[in-house]
Amino acid sequence: MAELRVGRRAVHNFWRQLEEFSTQFRHLRALVALAGWDQETYMPPGAAQRRAAQLATAQKLLHRHMNSTVARRLALRAHQILPLLPERKQRIVSCFLREYRRYTALPEQLLEELSYAQTLALESWKLARRESDFSLFAPYLQRLLELKRQQIEFLGYEEHPYDALLGLYEPGLRLSRLQPMLQELTVAVRQLLQWVQSRPVQPSDRLLHQSIPADEQLNLARIVCRQIGFDEGRGRLDLSAHPFCTALGPSDVRMTTRIHSGDASVCFYSVLHELGHALYEQGIPEELADSFAGEAVSMAIHESQSLLWEDIIGRSLAFCQWLFPLWQERFGRYVGEQWEGASAEELFGAVNRVQPSLIRTEADEVTYHLHIQLRLELELALLAGELRVWDLPDAWNDGMERLLGIRPREDRSGCLQDIHWALGDFGYFPTYSLGKLVAAILWKQMQRELPGLEQHICAGEFQPVLQWLRRTVHESAPLENGQELVQRIAGAELTVDAFVEYITDKLRRVYGEPLQSR
Amino acid sequence: MAELRVGRRAVHNFWRQLEEFSTQFRHLRALVALAGWDQETYMPPGAAQRRAAQLATAQKLLHRHMNSTVARRLALRAHQILPLLPERKQRIVSCFLREYRRYTALPEQLLEELSYAQTLALESWKLARRESDFSLFAPYLQRLLELKRQQIEFLGYEEHPYDALLGLYEPGLRLSRLQPMLQELTVAVRQLLQWVQSRPVQPSDRLLHQSIPADEQLNLARIVCRQIGFDEGRGRLDLSAHPFCTALGPSDVRMTTRIHSGDASVCFYSVLHELGHALYEQGIPEELADSFAGEAVSMAIHESQSLLWEDIIGRSLAFCQWLFPLWQERFGRYVGEQWEGASAEELFGAVNRVQPSLIRTEADEVTYHLHIQLRLELELALLAGELRVWDLPDAWNDGMERLLGIRPREDRSGCLQDIHWALGDFGYFPTYSLGKLVAAILWKQMQRELPGLEQHICAGEFQPVLQWLRRTVHESAPLENGQELVQRIAGAELTVDAFVEYITDKLRRVYGEPLQSR
Repeated sequence: MAELRVGRRAVHNFWRQLEEFSTQFRHLRALVALAGWDQETYMPPGAAQRRAAQLATAQKLLHRHMNSTVARRLALRAHQILPLLPERKQRIVSCFLREYRRYTALPEQLLEELSYAQTLALESWKLARRESDFSLFAPYLQRLLELKRQQIEFLGYEEHPYDALLGLYEPGLRLSRLQPMLQELTVAVRQLLQWVQSRPVQPSDRLLHQSIPADEQLNLARIVCRQIGFDEGRGRLDLSAHPFCTALGPSDVRMTTRIHSGDASVCFYSVLHELGHALYEQGIPEELADSFAGEAVSMAIHESQSLLWEDIIGRSLAFCQWLFPLWQERFGRYVGEQWEGASAEELFGAVNRVQPSLIRTEADEVTYHLHIQLRLELELALLAGELRVWDLPDAWNDGMERLLGIRPREDRSGCLQDIHWALGDFGYFPTYSLGKLVAAILWKQMQRELPGLEQHICAGEFQPVLQWLRRTVHESAPLENGQELVQRIAGAELTVDAFVEYITDKLRRVYGEPLQSR
Repeated sequence: MAELRVGRRAVHNFWRQLEEFSTQFRHLRALVALAGWDQETYMPPGAAQRRAAQLATAQKLLHRHMNSTVARRLALRAHQILPLLPERKQRIVSCFLREYRRYTALPEQLLEELSYAQTLALESWKLARRESDFSLFAPYLQRLLELKRQQIEFLGYEEHPYDALLGLYEPGLRLSRLQPMLQELTVAVRQLLQWVQSRPVQPSDRLLHQSIPADEQLNLARIVCRQIGFDEGRGRLDLSAHPFCTALGPSDVRMTTRIHSGDASVCFYSVLHELGHALYEQGIPEELADSFAGEAVSMAIHESQSLLWEDIIGRSLAFCQWLFPLWQERFGRYVGEQWEGASAEELFGAVNRVQPSLIRTEADEVTYHLHIQLRLELELALLAGELRVWDLPDAWNDGMERLLGIRPREDRSGCLQDIHWALGDFGYFPTYSLGKLVAAILWKQMQRELPGLEQHICAGEFQPVLQWLRRTVHESAPLENGQELVQRIAGAELTVDAFVEYITDKLRRVYGEPLQSR
């Protein structure tokens, strides 16, 4: 009896200390997230150098926090106390231990160098992209790769060095499982691409390619976000060079987008993408927000949310039927009579037009994965030292030609288009394709469980969808891991099947028979 | 010889450690400054509660940093090593020791409670101000006052409790010196006010009271900032409820302003005010920026910069002569023919019109100090417990009537108008009046040292003025203290004389004789 009481007190103390510790860690990390957001949106250009140093300092403090006596003691106690905790708390402790291992694996100096190198790489990437000159970015990328190789060794891996980086975004996933799955996907989408390219008639995209003022594009995006369920009291939408979403907690979720003045779909679908991320972040339960479980379960699950909204829902016929009148009302006045005779079906065709293109974020659902396949191959080659940094532009362009049949004419629309490598995010790209596979599985399940789903979407009623996602993913997900979550939802392992089925059906609708007759 | 070598190595090690320590401290503080700026500009409203907690955590980390073994060792060593350092480095060490004493004087819990109470007070003040309902703010102000009283006791004082707070902004200044000086100023400006009110003709202000779009007001402000020398590559201008300036280092200096759609001078002169602060911050030498000497020498010196630009230069006839064509070009189109016959002299009269008014930040140069006198009296009474928080609105209104002869009809334009108390900044207001006294001394000195000063201003050539301020104040000031700096520049102690002389001359120009004949 006396022993049990001691046990209870120990558990209580442990929990109190863990809460205090994690709250401090998460708060400091939120300030880092804010500084990162600011760097991309409102920071004056002259502040870049010092901001790099400020962020490096903050990373160092986070690292120090996780390497403190308090953290070490908590990690040691955690193993003893774990069996005494209810399942929900066990999950939180597991998340703490995962983070603890990640941080204590890397020496402070390496983390600091990584942070510094990333911020400088980011600035040089911005310049290089503007000038479309890879050589301005190359030395910084070179330095980052050296540091990432060091990071891999410190993180450790069982099969392949790349697993160490994959695990940062998709815990437990290995290249040996990832590579065949993505290869299968590559084969499937290349077949579909060939079929599409053989079709005699391609959908018109006149509804996208018009010059629409930036303000109007943002206005429409905001209206749609509100309608879908984005809480503007707990978030924002701003402009940046590369769209992203960052959260300082569920009460402060910030999306960015970019404007293409000649193609309103770029801004619109970028926002829908970030909106998917944002809804996930806003949906994380408040009581978990300052704990180590207050994050998305994995990046593939995060991407599943963005791709579900951007592509599966956002490019569905039902969604286009709801969107079309708004699109016409808001943008029509800038177009005159050129849109005469347009219809929701035409919009559906336009946003689902399949065509190999240079920019990943603007790619259609079929060719998108080929961009990812290219990046995965290049990352593996760069990290292994089989591809020299200076040869990247050529390798990129060759890969584009091999996979997509087109060749970029400048680095800006080639290997300089993505922000990820400048941020040191190697191992991240595959989560986009995985996210798509998960999204297709969620969609299939949602169709089963929500009667009248398409009618709801068609009527602009997004609450049923959002509620389903809150229940199924946002609220429970922080307490699971990615593979487990898929298993629980679909009752099976992750495969390419649901996606291939979904996209084949969609292509048949767009390309296979006259849409008007549907 | 051996001893000397050991001494050198000790000095070297000490210096290296101090640099690392202060860089970390300053970087973390910059992230706190960013979070504060964001809170006032772009933060979604729903994030207020968590932001309060995040800022409290950051303050706790700063406090912990300053209470660490490293800091304690540095502080102990500093006293031994000080005599071995050159003067410039001695000053930096003194600044460190001052900051060290401030932080170690307060227990961590109090700092945390202060930070949390301030952020909640800020949010309640915003709401209370919008609703013009002091009762929404009162409990939070009450709590803040309790904490400030505790802070005073921990900080310590020799003569008067208020000295502890004064010293946070104006090191070394005591109430026994401040109070008679401000009392003398009150008598002088009340006499001037009586004289002005007895004049038969008051200048017209038709050039200010017109409805000008917010964008145009901001555009003109930005043009003028650029012309004066604000480096837009190292700073920004945004909107907020209450104008302020914050710096994340000389490379990232952020001003805010507010728009009064019916009076373009509100935005314009708010910006000139913040510009004075911003130029000071941008002028702090890069090599000091991450040291404890990388800050303004005192708040009175900081305010002297804002008031010099806003009032002494910005409301001079020479400046109006330069500004008038711009003002007319930018704003004239919204006014039609109502400005016919207007002149630079009329603008000069309009921006120097003396008239008791309710809002401190919009007050003229004569009545401005009376607003400060009121706040000083109220702060002393609140802190001493002689005035109950709930009686503040009445005491405020009575004071306005006694000092300025007018009475606010609502709290919004009464005791809720300023952000300072919500931020816990008691003891700050007097620095505005002190700043004005210093500004007048600087102006007098500048007139002596810069031949053709008014012609330069009249021609929009602000470089000579800015260069003089850089040399005299911005670049050397971080290494002195406020009183010393005044002594060095003017060769005498701070008095009200230069200001009274300056303002009497200005009033004679505006009110004493027809301006046209000058």
